[in-house]
Amino acid sequence: MTPKLYFAMARDMGRTASEVEAVLAANRRFYEAFTNRDLAGLDRLWAQRAPVACIHPGWPVLHGREEVMVSWRNILTGPSSPQIACSGAHAEIVGDVAYVTCIETLSNGRLIATNLFVREDGEWRLIHHQAGALSPAFEAEDPEPDETLH
Amino acid sequence: MTPKLYFAMARDMGRTASEVEAVLAANRRFYEAFTNRDLAGLDRLWAQRAPVACIHPGWPVLHGREEVMVSWRNILTGPSSPQIACSGAHAEIVGDVAYVTCIETLSNGRLIATNLFVREDGEWRLIHHQAGALSPAFEAEDPEPDETLH
Repeated sequence: MTPKLYFAMARDMGRTASEVEAVLAANRRFYEAFTNRDLAGLDRLWAQRAPVACIHPGWPVLHGREEVMVSWRNILTGPSSPQIACSGAHAEIVGDVAYVTCIETLSNGRLIATNLFVREDGEWRLIHHQAGALSPAFEAEDPEPDETLH
Repeated sequence: MTPKLYFAMARDMGRTASEVEAVLAANRRFYEAFTNRDLAGLDRLWAQRAPVACIHPGWPVLHGREEVMVSWRNILTGPSSPQIACSGAHAEIVGDVAYVTCIETLSNGRLIATNLFVREDGEWRLIHHQAGALSPAFEAEDPEPDETLH
């Protein structure tokens, strides 16, 4: 391998690792906004132009930014707005889209979630979220490490 | 509006509608392969190079093509391989990635699913699937129309 090719590969790998870290950082901001009931912060995290959707645990799909943000407002301002902690986040990037899978731990059990991001205005923004119950059969498993980079 | 611009817009809209239809067709093939226990057909539908993952209902996430395909083999060859019907499929395309949300009806209840596709070798192929239980509170709702184009 030529030094030039070697350095090009190293540069590409560095770029990918830092992009994956940027996606995971956006994912962390999502859960921070959620647990802090920061509706404005949550609003900034959702895409402005790309078509968005959201599937809360057990719910049918919500389509479009307005419907999705109304649901978050209702959840975050409700009396039972949950405390939520994310673990085991794993990000994959495919072009200008990234998907993160992670465990959501609430006071009454664990969920498993997919968060879909798009690169918009140089930022990774949410376009879709689905969370659903993790079966009690898997509850006893050791949690995954906090974040996986690839 | 000039005729030239008008025709360019009509052409773009036609292209988008036909791409959405191609995504929905790939989504239909996924459920056909599932319900027909067609493991080879299912295998062809999953991406060959893009990083794949899968979250079966209640399960933790599976990462990588091998782990995902082993899970499908176990499900489709098991004695309780479910009959499954997809309805209310809704596709959104973001660059070379598309996501479909839909209802999965099984003999014992309904699930809600996200299917994530990537354009690979000119075909829309699955890179991620998450399905989770739809709450009985929503079970009584009328099913959505079979397919929504945007």
